Amino acid sequence: MINYEQKFRVAYPDTDRMGTVHHSNYAKYYEKARWELFRHIGVPYQSIEDSGVMCPVISMKFRFVKTTKYDELLTVKTTLKAIKGVRIWFTYKLFNEENELINEAETELAFVGLNDWKPCPPPEFLLNAIETHRNDKPTK
Amino acid sequence: MINYEQKFRVAYPDTDRMGTVHHSNYAKYYEKARWELFRHIGVPYQSIEDSGVMCPVISMKFRFVKTTKYDELLTVKTTLKAIKGVRIWFTYKLFNEENELINEAETELAFVGLNDWKPCPPPEFLLNAIETHRNDKPTK
Amino acid sequence: MINYEQKFRVAYPDTDRMGTVHHSNYAKYYEKARWELFRHIGVPYQSIEDSGVMCPVISMKFRFVKTTKYDELLTVKTTLKAIKGVRIWFTYKLFNEENELINEAETELAFVGLNDWKPCPPPEFLLNAIETHRNDKPTK
Amino acid sequence: MINYEQKFRVAYPDTDRMGTVHHSNYAKYYEKARWELFRHIGVPYQSIEDSGVMCPVISMKFRFVKTTKYDELLTVKTTLKAIKGVRIWFTYKLFNEENELINEAETELAFVGLNDWKPCPPPEFLLNAIETHRNDKPTK
Repeated sequence: MINYEQKFRVAYPDTDRMGTVHHSNYAKYYEKARWELFRHIGVPYQSIEDSGVMCPVISMKFRFVKTTKYDELLTVKTTLKAIKGVRIWFTYKLFNEENELINEAETELAFVGLNDWKPCPPPEFLLNAIETHRNDKPTK
Repeated sequence: MINYEQKFRVAYPDTDRMGTVHHSNYAKYYEKARWELFRHIGVPYQSIEDSGVMCPVISMKFRFVKTTKYDELLTVKTTLKAIKGVRIWFTYKLFNEENELINEAETELAFVGLNDWKPCPPPEFLLNAIETHRNDKPTK
Repeated sequence: MINYEQKFRVAYPDTDRMGTVHHSNYAKYYEKARWELFRHIGVPYQSIEDSGVMCPVISMKFRFVKTTKYDELLTVKTTLKAIKGVRIWFTYKLFNEENELINEAETELAFVGLNDWKPCPPPEFLLNAIETHRNDKPTK
Repeated sequence: MINYEQKFRVAYPDTDRMGTVHHSNYAKYYEKARWELFRHIGVPYQSIEDSGVMCPVISMKFRFVKTTKYDELLTVKTTLKAIKGVRIWFTYKLFNEENELINEAETELAFVGLNDWKPCPPPEFLLNAIETHRNDKPTK
């Protein structure tokens, strides 16, 4: 629906004694990636919390395809797949410098009130931004 | 197949500004839990690496059911579901002090050579330990 | 002033590709250690926040003496050194199973209001607990 | 001796329930900063490990001046202070968007053999790069 690409380097503390990236870090990579997609369409995630709404992850899955290592320049391709009711879905593909797939993942998030954690509709300004960018060509 | 229960407290840096545990930490909780199951059947994970074999995660999924918070005493119930060929499967359920389900997850791991990362059979001593404990009653 | 000993094992994600514990993790080890000292004297850190006060770190220093590795059973010896005005000081020594010193550290924390981050006196119940346990023999 | 500036945004999992950045993360920020200084003078840290040498931290200290928060754009000003024998010293100052000092720190690292962890001289190509850039004007 909306695609966004971002590059980053693997940091030293992301590695473990196997010499590769510890599997828990991919959740952090993809979180950063989806909020950068949001920033790209004009809605920094902070502005959502400022409006009284949070987006906790309610399910996520990961498939590990290849290993990567310290200082590799990775590209994460994020897709905002769908937004419906109180939920939003993203998918992610992570590539190395040889354009080989490293990892792929899906996350499902809910919109909830900042104070009561009760499901709530996403802010209008987010829905509008998504509508506006729905047919953008994929960014590099 | 083999069940194991472990308790732990949520540490302060595991929380984020939502006030709950950041979703990336569950992967760390379950990693610790499965290696404690292994220790319980007499096979510390280190002994597997000492035999030249590693167990990287090749897929994992999580479902977030309830929030938890700093210093809560959680119980993780780990099940070694199956071991077949070069793969091993675990499932996890995480409960709070009121015995409410917080999170559930599955991980699939591969056995690979420590140096070449090529799939390889699990060490005999691990297979033997699993065989021995296959019909244990669930531990508390 | 008050001493407390605690044992823990090095977790896999605490390691980095050097094969040892990443240096950022010692701050987490010592945070857990000082709040366990507090729990030991009857004041879980959560009860301090419940009273409207937080204890952020305002300075810390670490000296790395020896390396450690995955699954090593470490002992952290924590000392509540002093509490005066709106500040509290702890020192830490971390030992391996051979009782060799791995790391030593000092942290200085402030008492601040939960909402305004303004320095404030520590809660009375903490001061009382410290007074009560001031002459305890070191715990094992 | 050599100065380098870098900007980055505070990631969500770097925060804790106080709403600010957990103090353990500053060690990670500064590690990334010093290796970016090294990359800037033409010596990616990876090339040092490729030459058989590692740079573990042997002492570090931090002073926390102001709080920061999720998504703030921070600037870290890193100074390679000195390199002598088998040691190297860096200092760091971290500023927010209002150019207020958030944190300052010092780290001392050793050069050691990748396999034996024995102190050793830094690689020639690093010494040469430092010599070449010693009188550079501060970078933005």
